[in-house]
Amino acid sequence: MNTNLRLRLLSELVGTALLLCIVIGSGIMGVNLSQGNDAIALLANTMATVFGLYVLIELFGPIGGAHFNPVVTATMVLLKRLPKTEFLLYLLAQLAGAALGAWLANVMFGLEPIQTSTKIREGLGIWVGEITATFGLLTVILLSNSQRISSLVAAYIGAAYWFTSSTSFANPAAVFGRMFSDTFAGIAPESSMPFVLAECLGAVLALALFSLMGLAKR
Amino acid sequence: MNTNLRLRLLSELVGTALLLCIVIGSGIMGVNLSQGNDAIALLANTMATVFGLYVLIELFGPIGGAHFNPVVTATMVLLKRLPKTEFLLYLLAQLAGAALGAWLANVMFGLEPIQTSTKIREGLGIWVGEITATFGLLTVILLSNSQRISSLVAAYIGAAYWFTSSTSFANPAAVFGRMFSDTFAGIAPESSMPFVLAECLGAVLALALFSLMGLAKR
Amino acid sequence: MNTNLRLRLLSELVGTALLLCIVIGSGIMGVNLSQGNDAIALLANTMATVFGLYVLIELFGPIGGAHFNPVVTATMVLLKRLPKTEFLLYLLAQLAGAALGAWLANVMFGLEPIQTSTKIREGLGIWVGEITATFGLLTVILLSNSQRISSLVAAYIGAAYWFTSSTSFANPAAVFGRMFSDTFAGIAPESSMPFVLAECLGAVLALALFSLMGLAKR
Amino acid sequence: MNTNLRLRLLSELVGTALLLCIVIGSGIMGVNLSQGNDAIALLANTMATVFGLYVLIELFGPIGGAHFNPVVTATMVLLKRLPKTEFLLYLLAQLAGAALGAWLANVMFGLEPIQTSTKIREGLGIWVGEITATFGLLTVILLSNSQRISSLVAAYIGAAYWFTSSTSFANPAAVFGRMFSDTFAGIAPESSMPFVLAECLGAVLALALFSLMGLAKR
Repeated sequence: MNTNLRLRLLSELVGTALLLCIVIGSGIMGVNLSQGNDAIALLANTMATVFGLYVLIELFGPIGGAHFNPVVTATMVLLKRLPKTEFLLYLLAQLAGAALGAWLANVMFGLEPIQTSTKIREGLGIWVGEITATFGLLTVILLSNSQRISSLVAAYIGAAYWFTSSTSFANPAAVFGRMFSDTFAGIAPESSMPFVLAECLGAVLALALFSLMGLAKR
Repeated sequence: MNTNLRLRLLSELVGTALLLCIVIGSGIMGVNLSQGNDAIALLANTMATVFGLYVLIELFGPIGGAHFNPVVTATMVLLKRLPKTEFLLYLLAQLAGAALGAWLANVMFGLEPIQTSTKIREGLGIWVGEITATFGLLTVILLSNSQRISSLVAAYIGAAYWFTSSTSFANPAAVFGRMFSDTFAGIAPESSMPFVLAECLGAVLALALFSLMGLAKR
Repeated sequence: MNTNLRLRLLSELVGTALLLCIVIGSGIMGVNLSQGNDAIALLANTMATVFGLYVLIELFGPIGGAHFNPVVTATMVLLKRLPKTEFLLYLLAQLAGAALGAWLANVMFGLEPIQTSTKIREGLGIWVGEITATFGLLTVILLSNSQRISSLVAAYIGAAYWFTSSTSFANPAAVFGRMFSDTFAGIAPESSMPFVLAECLGAVLALALFSLMGLAKR
Repeated sequence: MNTNLRLRLLSELVGTALLLCIVIGSGIMGVNLSQGNDAIALLANTMATVFGLYVLIELFGPIGGAHFNPVVTATMVLLKRLPKTEFLLYLLAQLAGAALGAWLANVMFGLEPIQTSTKIREGLGIWVGEITATFGLLTVILLSNSQRISSLVAAYIGAAYWFTSSTSFANPAAVFGRMFSDTFAGIAPESSMPFVLAECLGAVLALALFSLMGLAKR
């Protein structure tokens, strides 16, 4: 494995860890402070995620691409911007980072470091929400030019936390990490597989639509 | 119909669908979570709309102009930046997109997919609000340079959701789409026609003022 | 009076009217919806003001300078960027615009169109707050380069609404306009003169500090 | 001491004073208005800090570097971007500024001007939070290019107020200033030393990781 690839994988690992730490940590803080008003907790969770995503993509984009998301990595492979052989390594770095981020959030907030979410997230509407969320994320990635990608992805997720019924995970690594935190941002393992399937389906729909139209840019 | 026009219409259809899905979906989520505090619901609705508009204009602007709004399309025709013959096609794409977006929001949140709003929005103050809202939107479109149009339109709508008494629809396609959702963001059909008239009046006032002054730029 | 001056004055009039309409209107909406939680009302008021200021400075800056504020106009005169003879005309345009904006906000929200605020704002701490608020605004104007002035002024006011005890009027035209609305954003006439004096004092302190240091840029 | 150094120290003093005034003042206002809902107070505190940091770094960065933070100054010395001999002077300017800012916030809000915080902030989770917070801040400073540093630092702190269990002080000068305000943003003197140690540890971890990887840029 060459140095450059090692650096890119480390970038994915650290970036995904910080992303999940932001998503889960701000969810815990939001619930701790908001006296049961989930709208205020989700507002805080959204703000932290938007700010955090913007920063992480700016910082780690030039190093490792700042995917933090297997669906995005797979898309890059399909568009021949990443060698097929690297997909698995990226995936492992992302999953390890996600678990690490969840662990760090749990530790910071004095919770059991290793835990399993019991938050069931299921139903046709939720799954349609998750398909829509990932369709939208891929639309952003396929149509935007790379210069504004940090602002665009962050802003998109800020909207999608609210307009999709699933609160927009849109990322199998995020699903994986959130399984390890039995808190506001968590997802029960038994709910995770349909989420990942919905995400893949949303991505495929966007890829089909925009690639056929000859619009995929990045 | 040439390929390029078809692409632009598709851009208007998909963009307007996503816009209405964002506006209505985040309204539903806001109400679901905010325990009856409408200010918090509108804050969430505003944030999602601002982020969403910014992203949609950035992505679809280079393809189809990112009007998503018949009043804007009509302005472009008046300023001779769009052939008169295309107005009706743009209008149809926008209305179809708006209805589609409402339908998707309803489905995601497990509501009756096709419904009619019962939310009456009327009164002299509200109509003056809607005139003001559209006057402001046209001011943005006529005076801004195209490079910052996405941030400016998004920021303007973010302000207008709060400073106008109508919460700033400022868009007949948005009025149309919102009729199909009996939720926070909805508008009853019997309230829709005065809203559209107010929007046209606001646009005409802005066009008259700034065009006469020789300031219309875009 | 030449055409160009007339255009600049009209720009100040329309811009200041929209600014006051945004400040007062969003204050009314915030209070109407927030069930007595003034923090939520001020959050909404802040967000609308930040978005609105950014848009107004972007749009009207290239036309008339986008002062909307006699203290800023006086500073420009002192720095010899505006002829002394135009100060009074700018002032009149700003005051007329401010009153017009208050009137429009009142009309939109179905209130008595012409009213007088009864909201007393006084006390040593409040006045120190207003001195600080205007000192900060002038710091922004004197030290920033003109390219980012819209974002910087908007962001500064967003912070100052919260960190100063006066909620940062920092603008005699805003004081004037807010006297005409007996609502959340209003100020009683008897409280207005000390506010204007505090604003002048804050501006003089900033001018003295940064001009002596040779740092005033714009 | 040459003029240029004097100017840079004054920039650090004024900038750090305004920063602490913003952090503490907006905390007081948030608590005053939010009826005991700390999530809303922290949302307001966050928004004011993000806007304020962005403005202060934009304005004072070109003059004195806009560190406002001894950990950042020490990093600049280590990276040989600041002469070792200036560290102590920067530190004194920052501490004096921080105390001044706390004093001003207390005065504005009619509180005892000189006071000592009684807010205990301690525990393993909190300290891990503060290590994480400063690790993240240094990551931003080491990996970002200087052009976007104002937005990146501001956005990072906006996220870190929520995702770290310590609400992210990440700055010994901020710890110092906050000791002088017995309010929402305060920290008791007995809690301050572990915070400073945690901050140093977080910074060292980031420096070690990114310097060894050859990624430190600025």
